[in-house]
This record gives sequence, C-alpha cells and structure tokens, in this order.
Amino acid sequence: MATHPPDDGFEARPDEVRDFLAAFFEELALSGVREVCISPGSRSTPLVVAAQGISELRCRPILDERSAGFFALGLARQSGRPVVLICTSGTAAANYWPAVVEAHTARVPLLLLTADRPPELRDWGAGQTIDQLGLYGSYVRRFVEVPVPVGGARARGYARTLACRAVAEARGRPAGPVHLNWPLREPLDGGAQPTPARETEGRPLRGRSRGAWTTVSPPSGEPSAAERAALLEIARQGERGLVICGPLPPDAETSAAIADLARLLGWPLWADPLSQLRRGPHVPTAPVLAHGDLLLRDAEFAEAWAPDVVLRIGDAPVSKALRLALEARPPEHWILVDPDRVWHDPSHLASRVVVADPGCLCRALAEDWREAGLSERQGDYRAGWLAADARAADALENALAGETELYEPGAVRDVVRALAPDATLYVSNSMPIRDLDAFMPRGARPLRLHGHRGASGIDGLVSGAAGAAAADCGPVLLLTGDLALLHDVGGLRLAQSLPQGLTIVVLNNDGGGIFSFLPVAERGEAVGFETFFRTPHGLDLAHLGPLHDAEFTRVRDADELRERLARPWTGPGLRLIEVPVDRDGNVKHFRELAALAASAGGAA
Amino acid sequence: MATHPPDDGFEARPDEVRDFLAAFFEELALSGVREVCISPGSRSTPLVVAAQGISELRCRPILDERSAGFFALGLARQSGRPVVLICTSGTAAANYWPAVVEAHTARVPLLLLTADRPPELRDWGAGQTIDQLGLYGSYVRRFVEVPVPVGGARARGYARTLACRAVAEARGRPAGPVHLNWPLREPLDGGAQPTPARETEGRPLRGRSRGAWTTVSPPSGEPSAAERAALLEIARQGERGLVICGPLPPDAETSAAIADLARLLGWPLWADPLSQLRRGPHVPTAPVLAHGDLLLRDAEFAEAWAPDVVLRIGDAPVSKALRLALEARPPEHWILVDPDRVWHDPSHLASRVVVADPGCLCRALAEDWREAGLSERQGDYRAGWLAADARAADALENALAGETELYEPGAVRDVVRALAPDATLYVSNSMPIRDLDAFMPRGARPLRLHGHRGASGIDGLVSGAAGAAAADCGPVLLLTGDLALLHDVGGLRLAQSLPQGLTIVVLNNDGGGIFSFLPVAERGEAVGFETFFRTPHGLDLAHLGPLHDAEFTRVRDADELRERLARPWTGPGLRLIEVPVDRDGNVKHFRELAALAASAGGAA
Repeated sequence: MATHPPDDGFEARPDEVRDFLAAFFEELALSGVREVCISPGSRSTPLVVAAQGISELRCRPILDERSAGFFALGLARQSGRPVVLICTSGTAAANYWPAVVEAHTARVPLLLLTADRPPELRDWGAGQTIDQLGLYGSYVRRFVEVPVPVGGARARGYARTLACRAVAEARGRPAGPVHLNWPLREPLDGGAQPTPARETEGRPLRGRSRGAWTTVSPPSGEPSAAERAALLEIARQGERGLVICGPLPPDAETSAAIADLARLLGWPLWADPLSQLRRGPHVPTAPVLAHGDLLLRDAEFAEAWAPDVVLRIGDAPVSKALRLALEARPPEHWILVDPDRVWHDPSHLASRVVVADPGCLCRALAEDWREAGLSERQGDYRAGWLAADARAADALENALAGETELYEPGAVRDVVRALAPDATLYVSNSMPIRDLDAFMPRGARPLRLHGHRGASGIDGLVSGAAGAAAADCGPVLLLTGDLALLHDVGGLRLAQSLPQGLTIVVLNNDGGGIFSFLPVAERGEAVGFETFFRTPHGLDLAHLGPLHDAEFTRVRDADELRERLARPWTGPGLRLIEVPVDRDGNVKHFRELAALAASAGGAA
Repeated sequence: MATHPPDDGFEARPDEVRDFLAAFFEELALSGVREVCISPGSRSTPLVVAAQGISELRCRPILDERSAGFFALGLARQSGRPVVLICTSGTAAANYWPAVVEAHTARVPLLLLTADRPPELRDWGAGQTIDQLGLYGSYVRRFVEVPVPVGGARARGYARTLACRAVAEARGRPAGPVHLNWPLREPLDGGAQPTPARETEGRPLRGRSRGAWTTVSPPSGEPSAAERAALLEIARQGERGLVICGPLPPDAETSAAIADLARLLGWPLWADPLSQLRRGPHVPTAPVLAHGDLLLRDAEFAEAWAPDVVLRIGDAPVSKALRLALEARPPEHWILVDPDRVWHDPSHLASRVVVADPGCLCRALAEDWREAGLSERQGDYRAGWLAADARAADALENALAGETELYEPGAVRDVVRALAPDATLYVSNSMPIRDLDAFMPRGARPLRLHGHRGASGIDGLVSGAAGAAAADCGPVLLLTGDLALLHDVGGLRLAQSLPQGLTIVVLNNDGGGIFSFLPVAERGEAVGFETFFRTPHGLDLAHLGPLHDAEFTRVRDADELRERLARPWTGPGLRLIEVPVDRDGNVKHFRELAALAASAGGAA
C-alpha cells in the first residue's frame, strides 16, 4: 500500500477515507438501507470496500449500470426501502439516467453514489472524467458534491448525518432519487476493514448508540404518536434543556405555543431577534433570554451552562457564540424542528429532525406533558440561566442609561424602545442584526421583525422595507448601516412615494463597520484593509433628503436620537435619521459592554 | 390595431391573448394574490394590460427590477400573500436574481412573470433576447415555459388552473419563488379591456363560480376540518360520483380505506390495473369496476353515465377512453388527492387539489360520513355502472372461455388467474398494461402489481422485475412484449442468478404490436410503417434459453399456455414462456372483444 508523502496534499490517506466511508455506510444501514447494487470500476474502490464492511448491507455485483438502475428500482418498489447504487466515474453514471428518470417520475427512493475524479483532475484531460456535478438535473431530489474524504471526528459526524439526510430525502414527499458525487483520490485501495467507533466521534451518544446518528421523522406532516412519546421522554429526562429559536415568520399563536412549552419544560428560551420571541405578551411568564450571545462569549460560562438537550426551532440563529459553544460541547439530544426540510444544521449535530409545524408541535408536546400529569419544571438550570441573563441586562442598562455618545448598542435599544406595538422593525444585515442580537432587551410590548437572513446579503434592504410598509400592517422602521443603504439607494425612490411612508435609521460609520470586528482589521494596509474591506465612501447623506423629498435628520448625540424618535415618525413620506458612529470607538465600546455583560452574567 | 392576416401563424391575435391572460390574472386574484409589481417594458405589454383589468389586483410601477424584487419580498413577508412581479425580456429578468435568491433561501412566496420573445425569435439575433428558460435554476420552486397564448375554452381553462397551481406552489412547503416565462408575439397592444366569462370555459361551475378555478389545500399534511367539511358536502350532494384510482403503491390498508369510502358513498370505483384495487379481499363488498375502459369506448354509454363528481386518487390512469370521456363532459367537481403535489391532471380539470395521504383522507371522510349519520348510499348510478360492468365481464368470459387461439386478451387473463395470493405481477408498458386494463377481471384474491408508469418507457423492465424478485416478497412474474424484452436483454443475466428466480411471459408479436392499433398503421409504407414503427426483428427467442441457462417454453395455443402456467413456475432460475401472437389477428380480436363488451355493457 502506498504511504502518504507529507508533501503531497493531493494523495489520499486510505485510513482516513476508510473511516469516513465506514461512518457513512454504517448510517445508511442504521437508517434502514439493506441493499447495495455495485457496478464494477476502479475509482469507486473505496466505496465498494466500505459498503462490504457493513454486515447489514447486501452487496450485489451488476455489470451494466443501466440494468443496475432498473434492478434497484424494482427492488426499492417491492421492498419499500431506498436502494443504493454505486458506480465508477465517466459514462457509467450516464447509464443510470433512464432509471433515474423513472424513479423521479414514479417517486421511488434511490441513492446514487457516483465515484468521481477529485476537483483538480476535472477538465484537465484525465481519463474517464466527465462533468458529474448536477448530472441528473432536476430529476433528483438533491445533488450533493461530497467533500474529498478526510479524517477527524467532525468530518465523520458529517458523513453520518449526510447519510441520514440522504435517506430521508430519498424517502421524502415526494420520494425519489438522491445523487451523491464522491471525489476520490489515489491510492484507491480502500484500506483495511474498518472498526467503526461512533463513541469517538465528538457527540455524546449514551442510549442512542444503536440508533441512527440522526433520526428523521417520516414525511407525514404531523409527528406520530410514537414520535411524540419519544420526544416527551427526552423532555422528561432533560433537566438541562434549551429551546433555541432562530428566525421565524411573525405569528402570535406560534410564539405563544413555543413560549408555553419552554415554560412547562423549564427550559430557557433562546430568542434570536428575528424569532419574534424576545418581545411580546408571552415574555413576562416565559423563560426568555435576551443576552445569551454575550453570556456565551465567556468560555467558562459556556462550559458551565452547556445544555444536554436542545430543541431548535426556526432557521439558524445569528449568534456565532451560540454555535461555537454548542460545537465545543455538543448536547446529547439536538432536536431540529424542520417543517420545510431545509436542514439548518451547519454544525451537523442534529440527532433528530422532526418535520412538523413549530406551533403545532409545541402545542402537542405541551398537551402530552400535561396529560402525563407533569407540572411546570422549576429547575436550577432555568433559574441559573435567567438570573445570569437578568444580571447582564441590569449591567447593560446601568452602563447605557446615561450614555450620550452615539454608539450602536445604545442606538438600537433606543430604536426598539421607540417602536409602538403595531410597528415593524426591518433590520439590515452585517452589524444591525448582530447589535440587536446582543443588546435588544426582553419586553412585553409586541414587535414584528423582518430581515434578509435567507442569504444574509446587504442588498435590497431599502426596497424590502418599502415593500413591508406597503403591506399596510402598521408603521415600518428600517434599521440599516450606511453601506446597505447606499447599495440599494435606488430603493429610496420607491419609499418616498408610499402613502404609508417609511422611516430609516442609518447607523453611519462611513463604510463596512463589521470588518473592524474581524481578524482582518489587525492586518491593516498589508491586505488593503481600508480600500477593500472598510471601503469608506465619504458621502454626505444629507443630500439624499432633497433628492427624495425626505425629512433628513442627523443626530449629534444619544439625547438627540431619543428626542427625534420621541417625535412622530410615522405617516406618509420618507424620513431619514442618520446616526453617525465612530467606527473605532464603537468597536471598543461594543467589546467593553460585552465583557461587562458576560462578567455580570457569570458573577453569581 | 393590427388585424391578423390568415397566412401569418407567427402574429398574435390580440383578442385571444387578452382572454387567455384575463383568465390567468383573474385566478391569481381568486387564489389570494393582491399585489402586482410592474417594471416597464414593451414585450410585457399584454401582461401589464391584463393585470390592470382585474380590480382586486393593485398594480405598482417600479422602474428597477432588482428593487422591485426586494420590494415584493418585503411586501410578501409582511402581508403573508404571494406577490407578482412582471418584467420585460432580457436583462430585466436577470435583475430579479438577488431577490429570487433571498426568497428561495428564506422561503418567501413570489410569482415571477417574465415576458419573452416567442421560440422562433430566440437565438436568432432578435433584440433584447436572452435564454430565459430555467433562468433561476434550482432557486425557484417551479419553472414553467407557458405556451404562446391561444384562444379556446380549453386553453383558458389551462391558464386558470396554471394560475392556481403557481400560487399553490409558491405557498407550498417550502414556500418560495415560482417562475413563469411568457412567450408573447407581436402585436403587443394587449387588446381592449376583457370581460372574463368563466361560464363559457368548458367546465360546469354552478356554486363554484365565485371561488378559485382550482382550490388547493394548504400544505399542512392533513386536510383541515373546514376542508373535510367541504369534501363531505360535495360527497353528500354527489349522487353521480366516481372514485378513480390510478397507480398506487401496494398497501392493503390504503386499498381497504379507499374501497370502504367508495362503498359508503355509493360511488363506483374505477380501478386502474396498477391501483392495486381491482383484485383483493375488499373486492366482494366494494363497487369495483373492471371493464370501464371498454364501456367508455361507447360514446352513448360515456354520455349517459358521465359523473358529476370525480375523486381522483393515485397517478394518472392508463385508460385513454376515460380521459377522453371526462374531457368531453367534465364533472362539476374534480377532486385530486395529491400527497406529493405532482398535479397529475393533464386535462387541467381538477377543481380541488387535496394534499393528503389517500388512505388517511379516505378513512377520515368515511368517519365524517358515518358521524353525520349517513348510511351507505344505494343509488341508481352505482347500480347502473356495476350492472354494465358485470354484463361486460360475462360477455368477455363467455367469448374467451373456450378460446384456443393465442391472443393477448385471453393470455393476460390466464396469467392473472395463475398467480398465487403472494405473487407479484410486473407488467411492461405499451400493450401489456393496456391489455390488463381492458381485460383483467375483478377478483378477491390479492395481487401486487408493479409497472414503469412514471415515464412509461419500455426500457429496463427485465431488470426491474429481477429487482422486485430479489426483494424476496413472493414470486414475481414479468408480463412483457417482445420489444421490451429485447431492449433490456442484458437484464436476463441478472435474473438467471437470482435465488428467488423469475418467470417471464413474453407476448411475442415480432415487433411493436401497439402501432397496429394506431392511425399510423393505415398509412402503411408511405410512412415506412414496417421499418420504422412495427420494426419486426425475426429473432428466435428460443436461443435465449441456453444462453441464460433458462427454461424456455413456446406455447402453441391457449391450452398449452394454461397447462404451462398450471405447472410450477416459481423457485430459483429463469423461466421464459413465449406466447406467439399474430399481430393483425390480435388487433381484430381485441377490437371485436371491446365491441362485444361495450355492447353488453350498454344493453340494459
């Protein structure tokens, strides 16, 4: 067997490939796959060797890939289980096409594993190499270009959850083929027979060591009684649980149902700004957290208060501190509520994916909890989190109460406080959403929030806010940075003509302020920091006022901002309120406040 | 206004375009759309004029399409309704791209209506023409190249159901953008303001004249109480109802639930061969039809027994006579049960699409029916259909009982009768599935059936049947024509090695027998009928026996076929039973039997 020369980054390490693939095929078996149809070839060697290493998988040799594809189709139809197909690179994969078409159209679950040259050999004249990316177009439920297999527990965890997801997508509604393209480097010997060791793969397993890495609910719309029973049991056992809510559309009933469940279970409720849960009538009686992002920046706090169970609702939250803390100490149970089957799990840590509407699911679980005769859990875990959050809130309030200088943390709090119960806050990406996440307090007054967290661009924010205002559901205030405003400056024309009007608060730090928080800021002119990252523009935004027939206000200090927001800012026409922010001072201020809050939170 | 010169097929008829588009936009409004964002242009003129003609639609002019896209996004988020975008051809459509990405990722419903040059002007250097087909790739829930608008009630019905489907797909799970590309020919004046007249559009409306053309259930997994109530009301009113089942996966509980509901409602149950409903333990007590395809070939019968309500379950049925009969006299209510949201409705006649599992839905409706205190309906309609079906069955039985010549109708009946209760019949496309549809009798003995009706190709049938046999769920018999066998002759190698074995009955008419049933057969050598349609091959299939270590039997008459099928045909190894069929004699025989059955059916 070839050994790996340390200077050749393009040579495979067979032991790492072996373990990565063993993890993948083991999870296929644990997710219900039983049959593998293998057409012979060289590039697919590691896949073929790994499949044979799992005793639950029956491997069948089939020369002709077209025939193999239809054989797998008949087998999947008759057995009701997804069937795996493995082939080598080149036209081999093209021979699956007729069966893929039939499986797509008739909704039969297949898993197509095509071996491929690694990226550096594609389109360079290497033999038997065709463009296999997206080869089957819209005829597969999903196409995945798998990374070149590497070592490490996180990578093997990814391989496991990828297998579970592929099976779930093949069996989804509608069922159908799923295509995974595998770039594999030489040597292709497949390694010795592996000994899978899930216990070493960076996630606590305990009772789940025999089940699939990620359990996925059947695509039935509502979770079954058995699934609800399993969730109830996890909830009963989970003294240290956390309900984590990322972005959700505004819906008072859903908010109330989530808050009610969190209260019953005694699990603190992490409320991303766009979750609609940080503020609203449910807040006084629910264990809502406001400053978790600041608290978790303290490694000691994060370690001490790490959850054993996570119930994740909504899209991925904005907090990076949260993601890092959970990755550093993964919970035993990570339940992802995923009605749209979008798998917002970039950490690859979900242990259970439940395809269900969040509101319906929370109502059902709360009912189950009550019917089981359980009362509201009053644990130390909830009390500890809430006390830390309250201390952080107090520390921030004390520090910011008399502040007169204009910095983002205080400005976003002033904006939030100025919003009437029927108002909508449209929040831009980059810094404003992160300012809100860190500093927006809990509160009982309702507030609708929207942002562009789908692709998280800084484009189209002015136009989007104008669209929200046009819906005529109460006044809309856009909170944006200067770059996002300038990127969509054409949108001001739209906004000025709206009968409902629009108010824009622009935090103007003359460029991309967020970059001053990033490591690149330390590199300075060696990397062109000012020119290519900070990009100061030097424009005087006041000229936008007369251009768009808008009321323009530049506030000079925090008092002026509060004073302006206290005056009417609704009704027809466009209002621009500029909040000039010193970029370097703001970075320093943000970090001081963060440290203050974290320190207060951890001080118990 | 330009008039249409009769010799210019490439010139638009503005009145037809106007009516087509009026139908489309009216249905958007009836499906809940309220807002249209229009960016100016010329090619989109008919769309812009038509949108303004619907009073419920608010049309807003927005110069910049990128800004319009984000405006629509914000408006859709805040209002919870899909928003329509209209732009002209060329880079206009490309400017929507950033908002499409955000709407896809954040799951916000948008309807993108892009005007385009008609096909004959694409890629011929016409101005402002780019390739708009699939422009947004996988970032839209669906892309539709709309046909060039034409006149006629059927076309307007299509425009209406297209609008309803587009809204449903934008609002589906996951929600997101839907792209409709509109090829529009000159003159582009948009016509005068239209007067929509749904009553003239070829489908009975009655009480539904104010609702959407096609009502689509919300994507909740299970129909709501209100939806069930609406379905119950339709069922109560529907004395002349038909449950039509196309292909469904084998599932005894689902079959029982459908049969039970049909029995309660007193609606005859049309059982496509692949519906799994024509044979099974439910048959003696359920109003199952076997020979509807033959009965409906008689225009008088079709007219006299046309249903007022259709409950369509499963994929599109194979019977062309059924489709033509329903199109000729559309039912008032056409309910499509569509758990996978695949819209199998090529006639565009569905009035209600219910996204629900067929078994669950039928159980729920049966429960509702019983809870409403209703008993089994014993109407003349059911009795009439069942009596006609029984007379047709008797006529066929009498005609075929003593038959010794080998023709397909008798052969498929002998095959079906030879199958044990644990057997699976894998049936090929082209003639065998149609033979089964016309001639397979009702029966209480269970039978699993599989076919390749997704894309209905004649490829891969041998391999597919081998795969089904390998699933080890009882013996499998493949019923195929000679061309399908030869197309997948490589699959025999797979079949011969199976421990479960496989039996193949090949109806050998030396070529494509189905073409002898088609109008092209009358054209003869003027169109190369023998060489390019019938394609006789002249191969002696007996040589396949020794090649694949198979038992080969060529039967000489119907008695020999029955005798061979009476001997064991299960267990390891491959068995080939060749049934030589004279092609011209078979056509004549099929038609005589069809006429006999139709005549007997209509004779009451």
